[in-house]
Amino acid sequence: MLTDSTVETWLREDIGHRDVTNSVPGETTGRLVPTEPGVAAGLDAAAAVFEYLGVDVQVQVEEGHQLDPGDPALVAEGPAQDVLRGERVAVNVAAHASGVATRTREAVDAAHEVDDEVRIAGTRKTTPGLRGIEKRAVAAGGGDTHRLTLSGMVMVKDNHIAELGFDRAIERIRERTSFATKVEVEVEEPGDAVRAAEAGADVVLLDNLDPAALERGVEALPDGVLAEASGGISMDDVPAYAATGVDIISLGSLTHSAPALDYSFRTG
Amino acid sequence: MLTDSTVETWLREDIGHRDVTNSVPGETTGRLVPTEPGVAAGLDAAAAVFEYLGVDVQVQVEEGHQLDPGDPALVAEGPAQDVLRGERVAVNVAAHASGVATRTREAVDAAHEVDDEVRIAGTRKTTPGLRGIEKRAVAAGGGDTHRLTLSGMVMVKDNHIAELGFDRAIERIRERTSFATKVEVEVEEPGDAVRAAEAGADVVLLDNLDPAALERGVEALPDGVLAEASGGISMDDVPAYAATGVDIISLGSLTHSAPALDYSFRTG
Amino acid sequence: MLTDSTVETWLREDIGHRDVTNSVPGETTGRLVPTEPGVAAGLDAAAAVFEYLGVDVQVQVEEGHQLDPGDPALVAEGPAQDVLRGERVAVNVAAHASGVATRTREAVDAAHEVDDEVRIAGTRKTTPGLRGIEKRAVAAGGGDTHRLTLSGMVMVKDNHIAELGFDRAIERIRERTSFATKVEVEVEEPGDAVRAAEAGADVVLLDNLDPAALERGVEALPDGVLAEASGGISMDDVPAYAATGVDIISLGSLTHSAPALDYSFRTG
Amino acid sequence: MLTDSTVETWLREDIGHRDVTNSVPGETTGRLVPTEPGVAAGLDAAAAVFEYLGVDVQVQVEEGHQLDPGDPALVAEGPAQDVLRGERVAVNVAAHASGVATRTREAVDAAHEVDDEVRIAGTRKTTPGLRGIEKRAVAAGGGDTHRLTLSGMVMVKDNHIAELGFDRAIERIRERTSFATKVEVEVEEPGDAVRAAEAGADVVLLDNLDPAALERGVEALPDGVLAEASGGISMDDVPAYAATGVDIISLGSLTHSAPALDYSFRTG
Amino acid sequence: MLTDSTVETWLREDIGHRDVTNSVPGETTGRLVPTEPGVAAGLDAAAAVFEYLGVDVQVQVEEGHQLDPGDPALVAEGPAQDVLRGERVAVNVAAHASGVATRTREAVDAAHEVDDEVRIAGTRKTTPGLRGIEKRAVAAGGGDTHRLTLSGMVMVKDNHIAELGFDRAIERIRERTSFATKVEVEVEEPGDAVRAAEAGADVVLLDNLDPAALERGVEALPDGVLAEASGGISMDDVPAYAATGVDIISLGSLTHSAPALDYSFRTG
Amino acid sequence: MLTDSTVETWLREDIGHRDVTNSVPGETTGRLVPTEPGVAAGLDAAAAVFEYLGVDVQVQVEEGHQLDPGDPALVAEGPAQDVLRGERVAVNVAAHASGVATRTREAVDAAHEVDDEVRIAGTRKTTPGLRGIEKRAVAAGGGDTHRLTLSGMVMVKDNHIAELGFDRAIERIRERTSFATKVEVEVEEPGDAVRAAEAGADVVLLDNLDPAALERGVEALPDGVLAEASGGISMDDVPAYAATGVDIISLGSLTHSAPALDYSFRTG
Repeated sequence: MLTDSTVETWLREDIGHRDVTNSVPGETTGRLVPTEPGVAAGLDAAAAVFEYLGVDVQVQVEEGHQLDPGDPALVAEGPAQDVLRGERVAVNVAAHASGVATRTREAVDAAHEVDDEVRIAGTRKTTPGLRGIEKRAVAAGGGDTHRLTLSGMVMVKDNHIAELGFDRAIERIRERTSFATKVEVEVEEPGDAVRAAEAGADVVLLDNLDPAALERGVEALPDGVLAEASGGISMDDVPAYAATGVDIISLGSLTHSAPALDYSFRTG
Repeated sequence: MLTDSTVETWLREDIGHRDVTNSVPGETTGRLVPTEPGVAAGLDAAAAVFEYLGVDVQVQVEEGHQLDPGDPALVAEGPAQDVLRGERVAVNVAAHASGVATRTREAVDAAHEVDDEVRIAGTRKTTPGLRGIEKRAVAAGGGDTHRLTLSGMVMVKDNHIAELGFDRAIERIRERTSFATKVEVEVEEPGDAVRAAEAGADVVLLDNLDPAALERGVEALPDGVLAEASGGISMDDVPAYAATGVDIISLGSLTHSAPALDYSFRTG
Repeated sequence: MLTDSTVETWLREDIGHRDVTNSVPGETTGRLVPTEPGVAAGLDAAAAVFEYLGVDVQVQVEEGHQLDPGDPALVAEGPAQDVLRGERVAVNVAAHASGVATRTREAVDAAHEVDDEVRIAGTRKTTPGLRGIEKRAVAAGGGDTHRLTLSGMVMVKDNHIAELGFDRAIERIRERTSFATKVEVEVEEPGDAVRAAEAGADVVLLDNLDPAALERGVEALPDGVLAEASGGISMDDVPAYAATGVDIISLGSLTHSAPALDYSFRTG
Repeated sequence: MLTDSTVETWLREDIGHRDVTNSVPGETTGRLVPTEPGVAAGLDAAAAVFEYLGVDVQVQVEEGHQLDPGDPALVAEGPAQDVLRGERVAVNVAAHASGVATRTREAVDAAHEVDDEVRIAGTRKTTPGLRGIEKRAVAAGGGDTHRLTLSGMVMVKDNHIAELGFDRAIERIRERTSFATKVEVEVEEPGDAVRAAEAGADVVLLDNLDPAALERGVEALPDGVLAEASGGISMDDVPAYAATGVDIISLGSLTHSAPALDYSFRTG
Repeated sequence: MLTDSTVETWLREDIGHRDVTNSVPGETTGRLVPTEPGVAAGLDAAAAVFEYLGVDVQVQVEEGHQLDPGDPALVAEGPAQDVLRGERVAVNVAAHASGVATRTREAVDAAHEVDDEVRIAGTRKTTPGLRGIEKRAVAAGGGDTHRLTLSGMVMVKDNHIAELGFDRAIERIRERTSFATKVEVEVEEPGDAVRAAEAGADVVLLDNLDPAALERGVEALPDGVLAEASGGISMDDVPAYAATGVDIISLGSLTHSAPALDYSFRTG
Repeated sequence: MLTDSTVETWLREDIGHRDVTNSVPGETTGRLVPTEPGVAAGLDAAAAVFEYLGVDVQVQVEEGHQLDPGDPALVAEGPAQDVLRGERVAVNVAAHASGVATRTREAVDAAHEVDDEVRIAGTRKTTPGLRGIEKRAVAAGGGDTHRLTLSGMVMVKDNHIAELGFDRAIERIRERTSFATKVEVEVEEPGDAVRAAEAGADVVLLDNLDPAALERGVEALPDGVLAEASGGISMDDVPAYAATGVDIISLGSLTHSAPALDYSFRTG
């Protein structure tokens, strides 16, 4: 959840101690408007910035809405001084989140051209401080958030397996993991996927494989065990990976390298 | 400055309440290593993550260093459990900041091919929560931070001028602004640049002009008054703007749309 | 994770602005020692209190260790003034967490007398501010943490089902839930358990049923779908519920009503 | 006082980053209702949770009110999504505080059967993070809060006396303590009580004495000096201690071992 | 207690995002030295600033020490960059606190010329954010901190008495106040002092009386009830008030109007 | 900017855990009224205290208004309990800030008697935690805030110059400083002022000079370079310094040694 403390941090870092020019009299209305097509996200966070400042604000579209240039996404009304004080931060957070959502939708659309069941997922490669907002933006773009924190799904890594073997490593993790939590096992060879599944993985992560190798791994998996592809997959690679039958394709770039969506904030 | 509270926020959002797998015994050494060329930034912030966790950490290169793939940028040594707990967040912040620095250097290099005096500057279009880190990254890439907060330089906007005229608007702002603070005036017509300068601007911001119009505005300015170009300038546009004789070219995309630099974290 | 900010909050609320008597000269060693048998938990948190104050501290036993009266659980060494400043808070957190762990182990032991596969789980009925510490204490006592936050597993409640029916309600939730996240469905009639399972539940929560009704619900479930019993189950009821073949028995009282374990802190 | 930051901490630890199921449309009304008899406390804190979320909330009874099962204690009205987001935390804090108040009233009633002047007091053995709420709950149950922090009353301990003797130890503390602050002296022998009083104690703490020994210590005290009994006194011991003529009986278990009062939250 | 969070706030407000000049290489030693005579206070807080930055620091004198110009009060050693980063804030807090201590000692000395038993006390008129530090400084100067917070002693005000009469107002407050807490009653007529004492006040506050009126009120009080004079008493008035036999003279100006003690910070 | 967190800190330190007397029924109106003439400042901060508590509040005068005794500066209306809870803190912050503003106006008036162009400026010698409020108060009193943080203007100190010489030191700083930021050079000899100006200083700080020496330094400066006098200048010295033609006179005492303006808070 987005807290008041976080909004406070954003405003404080932008404003500093004192903004001399910001003693504007009167009331104003500001509209947050995209100047290019994209997917709406981060509007609740932008609204929270204005709410912190005591400005009335209405979000105009749902998260995930496909915006056309000029569509108003959010309207803020109140003392000009307070509207202007929130403007820059509100635009920044909406632009960032909508950029993530837009990039995610592109990846989802590219994948669904090939296989409309495959999921495009984010990773833990998020911008520090913005985990929740970026994960919501991935969802807004039609993607899968993946686990939100380290505590959300347990990952059995190669070093665990090297030490104990598949069966023992997974068994041990299972004992220490809640029934409420899934266990994912990371493998680096297609042939290991089926072993992980047999040892009890809920999900098998096939790391850093090319599409052909990935496909061999995926095909061997029994029903009910999900396969995730991850590791250095670019936007251009998405269709080839989607064609492998894998269940989930994870892309760090959705969150760490999506360009911002350009918005302007029009007052008066 | 980067505070312990901020690092705490980053770790908490990544870890959640409890990380079952992270009871790894023993000590380990981790190396933060780029997998592609780029400019080092955010390493102090990455180090602060490990320091918060009580892990010994050494930054290996200066901010702004041009990294080759495989160069160790940071080394962390300590209990495996603590090193692994900090890994993801440390990588995320270094990757983000180094991405900003790398993009900045590209812009600076492109500009200096044409005019080696022109400055490439960031804007207030930063990622919420990361203002300080992104501004340092811009500097690491050879760019100019521009003002860090609203309080850092005062901007006289078109609405002030519309209301009061150049002379009166600038005079009024001057009265309310410290001697320690510069005053920048935003103009949207090249012909207004000289009027702003005569009225006492330290810097004139020529907003949303094409290079030809910009050049007319810049040429008219007296010595000692700086000219800044801003507004919708892409990386490809940099050389054309640099050729106008403008002093500063500002790019929001340095901070809001730079792709992350890819790092891996190698332990053992 | 337990942050420095949380420890700071604990100390500040105990100490207030100024502690006149606490200008004790010299160094001291303090030992945290249980005065009754119980299960160790919260020792990392107690240690963090001393670490915040710059006192050297060694935890003497693992979380989950069965303590006898007089066993030292933690040793703190440093300036007497700082050791004494942390004492009360450190004891309070260890006593609370160890009480939860001890109560959990009693429940686990009672259940395992009957069925050594059944899991005893905590709930979200935790003490505000201590979610993570209480969940770790449940695990220390041999229990299952259950989901740590609302985001950790998705619950389909009766009102969702009333509105949309089992299939549609579960399908809709599935679409909006990550692959990394399990879906649990709450039913109030034993006969609904199998319908929930068929509609795709990973876990079925049988709420407020007596053991006989619970058993009917559990027996009807297919393999691979877990059954959880919850709602008003007291410590005395545990064996009867354990005998039903249910997979998980959840008890709010593990966290909200466990008496503290008595510790004393011996200095000198 | 309960701050917004504290409420924020409670909500964040319960919700995590994102609650998928919590996009419930429409408005709702929720009622906090006890399912067993007990003493109302923590309702202001529960209300503060809803207020943080922008939900209208009315506390229905005073702190300390004796609740019957089914009595509405608090009513919250607003967007269903926000009411449900606050529900769990609000119930948890009210259940905990009301449990403390209920346990306190039991102790007070047991004591007053024997001596209706004796005070039942809490201690500093409170749950970390909940000092203020638990102290208010003790008061709601008819108990005495005792000092709220280390700074609230000064305690002269046996180690001070061992070093300096009664007179000198108390004199020294007096010099360093504000006139606004009482001084309590801890003794472990009944015969020392009167010496402490003569040396200037406002209150004498008779620690870990059985009722007979306690009575001897109490009887020797001059008028105007209060006697407090503390140390390992259980609920069952209260009448015997109350019969000694002591002024205050302190019980750590009021705050650290009171079972929660069971509440349900009924919406619609 | 002074927390890391508070120190962080002080440093952040002084430094802002980035301090370009502060990349000074090498190690340095800094000495905090008064340039005028005064009373040492706030040195622990100044030390905490350096400790937050990882600088070794030694406080050279006790709180309350009478400093001569040039006496080193604190020595900090470490990386020049970190020493310089802390300098301004450390000096500011020491200068402020030592100013309060110095002013307090002046008042104490003036009072003790006349009556060496009378106490000079601070009030709740402290600088927001610095309550604890200023109260410690008052104590360092030989003054009495008075209550530290609203919760520290209970004040019965004229409006309570107007409504209920002395006896009933005090009785009611007594019932709701812990045995650990003193009750002070505020009176505005000398004749009311004795009535307040008879009704059970521990302390009587004689508000806004001239010395003659005060003396009449004080003389009438029975033994064991303390008399406090407060309200508009200047430094010059202290001897006249001290001569009345009053027990405590409270001065808001100790904390809200004491000039800073001048320190310089000498490095190298 | 003043954040909710800061207000929370102020209230918490004043109130502590629980204020027994503060259960006053009914509504009240409180008026903040000066009892002596002075300059209004800090009223927004005082208002923020009441707003945090949910009390309606109206500031009656502009920052910088010359108040007469009895003029209402702020009116707060709401539940008596909440108004009284905020009273002390609101008065304290307004009294402190108005004291700074009043002292500043005295200095400005004294200076303008001699030279109506000279600016009276604050310094970084502010009270920890109150930088922003004190800087606004300086401005309210007609003074110049000077730089708000270390990041606001760059200072070239004597140790930089000693190492590199004027030209090289300033050139190096210039390279690392944004175009948005001024550079000030500190000199300790009048003869160095002109060298600093020639090397490119925007402002020259003449440190610790007497008026005669200062005047020699100022006269030598070229047009467009500002001269600042600083270091040990008392209120009494202001006219003599103002007569030198210097542009700015900086006084630490404006913020660290101004006595509070006396306000009373009248309710009912």
